[in-house]
Amino acid sequence: MTALPPLAVAMGDPAGVGPEIIAKAWARRREERLLPFFAVGDVRAIARVWDGPVAHIDSPSGAFAAFDDALPVLTMENGGEIVPGRPDLEGARCALHSLELATGLTRSGAAGALITGPVSKAQLYQIGFTHPGQTEFVAERVGVAASATVMMLAGPTLRVVPATTHVALSQVPGLITTGLLVAKALVTARALVRDFGIASPRLAFAGLNPHAGEQGAIGREEIDVIIPAVEALVAQGIDATGPMAADTMFHARARATYDAAICCYHDQALVPLKTLHFDEGVNITLGLPIVRTSPDHGTAFGIAGQDRAEPGAMIAALRLAAEAAQRRADALVAA
Amino acid sequence: MTALPPLAVAMGDPAGVGPEIIAKAWARRREERLLPFFAVGDVRAIARVWDGPVAHIDSPSGAFAAFDDALPVLTMENGGEIVPGRPDLEGARCALHSLELATGLTRSGAAGALITGPVSKAQLYQIGFTHPGQTEFVAERVGVAASATVMMLAGPTLRVVPATTHVALSQVPGLITTGLLVAKALVTARALVRDFGIASPRLAFAGLNPHAGEQGAIGREEIDVIIPAVEALVAQGIDATGPMAADTMFHARARATYDAAICCYHDQALVPLKTLHFDEGVNITLGLPIVRTSPDHGTAFGIAGQDRAEPGAMIAALRLAAEAAQRRADALVAA
Repeated sequence: MTALPPLAVAMGDPAGVGPEIIAKAWARRREERLLPFFAVGDVRAIARVWDGPVAHIDSPSGAFAAFDDALPVLTMENGGEIVPGRPDLEGARCALHSLELATGLTRSGAAGALITGPVSKAQLYQIGFTHPGQTEFVAERVGVAASATVMMLAGPTLRVVPATTHVALSQVPGLITTGLLVAKALVTARALVRDFGIASPRLAFAGLNPHAGEQGAIGREEIDVIIPAVEALVAQGIDATGPMAADTMFHARARATYDAAICCYHDQALVPLKTLHFDEGVNITLGLPIVRTSPDHGTAFGIAGQDRAEPGAMIAALRLAAEAAQRRADALVAA
Repeated sequence: MTALPPLAVAMGDPAGVGPEIIAKAWARRREERLLPFFAVGDVRAIARVWDGPVAHIDSPSGAFAAFDDALPVLTMENGGEIVPGRPDLEGARCALHSLELATGLTRSGAAGALITGPVSKAQLYQIGFTHPGQTEFVAERVGVAASATVMMLAGPTLRVVPATTHVALSQVPGLITTGLLVAKALVTARALVRDFGIASPRLAFAGLNPHAGEQGAIGREEIDVIIPAVEALVAQGIDATGPMAADTMFHARARATYDAAICCYHDQALVPLKTLHFDEGVNITLGLPIVRTSPDHGTAFGIAGQDRAEPGAMIAALRLAAEAAQRRADALVAA
């Protein structure tokens, strides 16, 4: 195996649960067998919620020596006070600078992968952030059009890709096109090979309508849009099936028949994923030149600073990022 | 406890898995502690798929004496041959007559509750059946407008009510109205008291849009339709909450906070239910003067006659029907 640089973890909003779950993940580094990582953000945000050892580092490489005994932190200036559960604009600025630095370090190869903690979009918008979310910001910084990336949510027994995301449900039928579905599926299939090590990925498409439309009796999008996408993919040698009735494709036996479900809309993908894997879901951005994951939950300001945040999703995000980055590094050496 | 008449089980399509799961449920009557029931349908459909003991009965009351030692069957004439997995119009007629008789026996009080096996709607339509499904037929026969009934899907850890059912997703935003949601919720709340024995039912509404619309940023139906419904219900003393983000309301901790989820559309309700409880989901029709349940699966013609059908959902349907009917009977006596 090729040696991987340490992983960069952008802390997210300092008033959210990001600092706490990063610290708790580090505390479980041995039993979870985590590769060395370092946090990027205001070290005070860690100290406010955790009394474990912290090592200040100046560069990613410093994380190797420090990681065994302390949580390595590449600290950022933050002008304001930090109060868990009370986000402010200084914190949002700090979250953005942390994200920018962690992304740059990963893009340069100094860090092995990027893991991003949860941010408050509402706060970010107030400081002039113009991207819809962290994903679009990261994509721009690494030179990829956000539209060419794919959001996948991954849990222990299910991977889902929503073809549309944060749009009103009424817009979804007009937004799903054969071209969109094919593009999402191709990025997904490539990532399943490259990042997940699945040689021949199996993609299952969910229908848009109840019972996948019952041959056009309950909606025509399956016939007009989804079936042509499946056929186009099969013609390109992709193992694509469907459209399947969404309600019968996520139980255990059904999940075993595919590697990723391509869904038409946000809740179609996220309801089964979070129903099954609420505390361990990972958001991974496919189609980037770097590996980027994040825990699939928000800032949880309501419980920040109360020692109640579970680090399971952060640990899963760290592990998935490490696995994907390792596969990419090994493939480069083998090539 | 008031003694309950035996439960009537309409066999469903004789070429489907109905006969097999009824026989298998009877075979497990002792360990599952099932109340006496009898099947209504062509006895040959049972004999084709099962070699256990059958007792012909002339009236529901005959089921009491027979139930310990044999599966009681009130048999119907069926002119055609019965071949598992090969539905035909004679079978559809038999299924319809069975449904009609079982419904009538339950309505008259001779049977304690109605459990319906799976039918083929496509076959029923060919013999002139004009109702969308069995539910509407049953509602008419017991004197209730189908629009006043509510479909609930119930599993061991989740109950869901889809406010709209078999319509294209593109129609859903136009169909959900405050009046519809309030009406569905009131029927649901009453049934949770009367049939499920929950003194103060807690209803949770799912949002239509991702993240329940984020205060109008991703769709306005929450603000315009759902919140007014919740407020109207609360004003009537109903414990209603929401709208909640659909993706975060179905994991275990979230499910523990409500007794039923009122969902906007078919897959929003059925994806989590079947993801969690695929083999034990029960469809119960709320708002009828009789108790009616059915296993939440179809005819499964593809596996009929192969001894592969699982009776779990039929057993759950029998048990839920018995519990609900017992509660109603006891309430009558207490009143």
